[in-house]
Amino acid sequence: MIDFGLGALPYCSFSHNDGRRRLGVGAGTGIVDVDGLARRGAISSIDPRILTRGRLNPLLAAGRPVWEALHEELSVIIREHLDTAIPQDQTAMHLAWDVGDFVDFYSSRYHAENLGRLFRPDTDPLLPNWLHLPVGYHGRAGTVVVSGTPIRRPSGQRRTPDGEIAFGPSVRLDIELELGFVLGGPTKLGEPVPIAAAAEHLFGVVLVNDWSARDIQAWEYVPLGPFLGKSFATSVSAWVIPMQTLAAARIQGPAQTEPRPLSYLRTEEPWAFDLDLEIWMRPSGVDTSTRIATVNTAKAIYWNAAQQLAHLTVNGATVRPGDLFGSGTISGPVQSQSGSLLELTWAGRDPVDVGGTLRTFLEDGDEITLRGRAGGGDVPLGPVAGKVVSSRERQFQEETP
Amino acid sequence: MIDFGLGALPYCSFSHNDGRRRLGVGAGTGIVDVDGLARRGAISSIDPRILTRGRLNPLLAAGRPVWEALHEELSVIIREHLDTAIPQDQTAMHLAWDVGDFVDFYSSRYHAENLGRLFRPDTDPLLPNWLHLPVGYHGRAGTVVVSGTPIRRPSGQRRTPDGEIAFGPSVRLDIELELGFVLGGPTKLGEPVPIAAAAEHLFGVVLVNDWSARDIQAWEYVPLGPFLGKSFATSVSAWVIPMQTLAAARIQGPAQTEPRPLSYLRTEEPWAFDLDLEIWMRPSGVDTSTRIATVNTAKAIYWNAAQQLAHLTVNGATVRPGDLFGSGTISGPVQSQSGSLLELTWAGRDPVDVGGTLRTFLEDGDEITLRGRAGGGDVPLGPVAGKVVSSRERQFQEETP
Repeated sequence: MIDFGLGALPYCSFSHNDGRRRLGVGAGTGIVDVDGLARRGAISSIDPRILTRGRLNPLLAAGRPVWEALHEELSVIIREHLDTAIPQDQTAMHLAWDVGDFVDFYSSRYHAENLGRLFRPDTDPLLPNWLHLPVGYHGRAGTVVVSGTPIRRPSGQRRTPDGEIAFGPSVRLDIELELGFVLGGPTKLGEPVPIAAAAEHLFGVVLVNDWSARDIQAWEYVPLGPFLGKSFATSVSAWVIPMQTLAAARIQGPAQTEPRPLSYLRTEEPWAFDLDLEIWMRPSGVDTSTRIATVNTAKAIYWNAAQQLAHLTVNGATVRPGDLFGSGTISGPVQSQSGSLLELTWAGRDPVDVGGTLRTFLEDGDEITLRGRAGGGDVPLGPVAGKVVSSRERQFQEETP
Repeated sequence: MIDFGLGALPYCSFSHNDGRRRLGVGAGTGIVDVDGLARRGAISSIDPRILTRGRLNPLLAAGRPVWEALHEELSVIIREHLDTAIPQDQTAMHLAWDVGDFVDFYSSRYHAENLGRLFRPDTDPLLPNWLHLPVGYHGRAGTVVVSGTPIRRPSGQRRTPDGEIAFGPSVRLDIELELGFVLGGPTKLGEPVPIAAAAEHLFGVVLVNDWSARDIQAWEYVPLGPFLGKSFATSVSAWVIPMQTLAAARIQGPAQTEPRPLSYLRTEEPWAFDLDLEIWMRPSGVDTSTRIATVNTAKAIYWNAAQQLAHLTVNGATVRPGDLFGSGTISGPVQSQSGSLLELTWAGRDPVDVGGTLRTFLEDGDEITLRGRAGGGDVPLGPVAGKVVSSRERQFQEETP
């Protein structure tokens, strides 16, 4: 159970006794039934029908003035309805919204440099475009799942160290710690969102674990990018933290002077977020979780959310209510601040000590939980939990042609 | 106007006098209002509510037995309702379904080899993974648009020939001729669709023009693949041709013996389609269209739709009703059989003669139309039409930092 207090006001989609999905808002360690409040006429600031569909999408479509009005009203009336809050452990949590398109960026400089050092040791760790634009790509929206969903080990093709092509369960299953941004809209085809208008479309944040099969990815990704190595599952927190709640955590990010970004990517606004994120692992057969990494997002992320949104739409691509983008793996300058096992173990060469158990990549039964707190500690983020289950047995015997 | 005859039975979403979106089926040069038939109780083989939502998605969710029953009933009753058919030119056409995830493959060997020769002239034209797996990536589902939608020239970053970073309207706007497959489902997370079950999920085909800004793409795409160079628009035909209609066009595709595919990609079924596709261009200011390329898909496509679907899901990724995948650009062994201007003009070096007008890449006002016919000529495919409109003026002055 997480204690959100009364100031965070995170949204969720939950079900309780009758199984019906309802929108809720976190209050202390309980959930206030926003759907029920709307049906009973207890919410007056916005059209109550926006709140009774069991998902955030109608609210995401309604736009920032509606988001602000609802947040303000909830911050007052939640106190009156605290006695009706349902304890978190008596609910089932669902994905809080239907995901439109899912874009994954690559915006942590330390992460990009780590991968460059690992895979292109004889060259500049950053590729030529990296400091000029937020590199990103589209992921699979249909396999974004809510925290707690078991993660089946994917099978696929890989090239073995001796150059053979093999098929079977991934042997390098990894995690990626990311910050995700849930978008509202819509916008019109052909009309970019200028960076000054980014706030109109950034609804809130989730934590993201973008599970990755490094062996599948390494073999498939040239020249069109990651595909099956990522598309089997992406876990997000059940709780969506609205931007209003994170206002106090907004600070200036890293300086961008060499090179200076092109004008469509320039902003003076403090679009970095001072968030402390953590990765916890409970190895298979072990009772306790161990924290294996911590990283602060403000220092680690080079391209901020407003820049990412401005870039994403500068070609005229639309934003739909429910679109999601991720920061990409967040890593800091020190190895223990890495957002992936690939970096924490330096591609498996240096196993990490998880409370006495050594790990390189994930084993069946391992459980990963991402957690975080906004700077100052008032607002919890996450959790994003997922346990690895074994691949399907007989069909996925190892095969070489 | 296209004459579909009475055997093709292509689905569409159209509106007429009252503006309401309705499912229809093509009959001759008219559209029979399937939504209206269902509401009046004239369809008995399936639940009529599947047909009254204005989009194909409920039908896509219903599965192959329902698809077969409806196709069979329509093939009979359409003759009784021909007098009610609305002429195509009195309707507005909409995207026939809400797109879930959009995956774009790269399955034409000639196309992949052409790009290898153009961009990596000193190496093997095929990358090492290409003959082992259907290379693919996720595109942007939210910018899939119906035939006829104007295509605004995208702006973005590019690297100029002298190595400067510049921002402005794309100067290498291109087309990609593709065959698209509309999927039904759903499937369960973690459960692949084996190749023998592919037919259960392949609902029908569309033609696809995956507009591409080659200059934006070239600068952004390493290492995570195409992003803004493709995401501004992907046009699809308003008509979805059901698989039943294409049964006679199914033949064996190219031999796959060196190397032999891994077992999950092996099938003896004739999953290639004998389709003749064409690209037509009407240059800006010119009254007539000229055919600039023709290609037969059966010869040009190496990895077939069943292989693509089996690959797409082998890692456990789900299929949702409405998912779409494209073949990737379809090119044949001869330059005039190329599915892109990049190949037709050999990266702009050899302008193509369009009825007396020379073109390398697209200019504002140019109109592209993709058309096709199933082998034998009975079933028309397409059209996919799109006219290039100029980029937004002032915001997109050329800029260098």
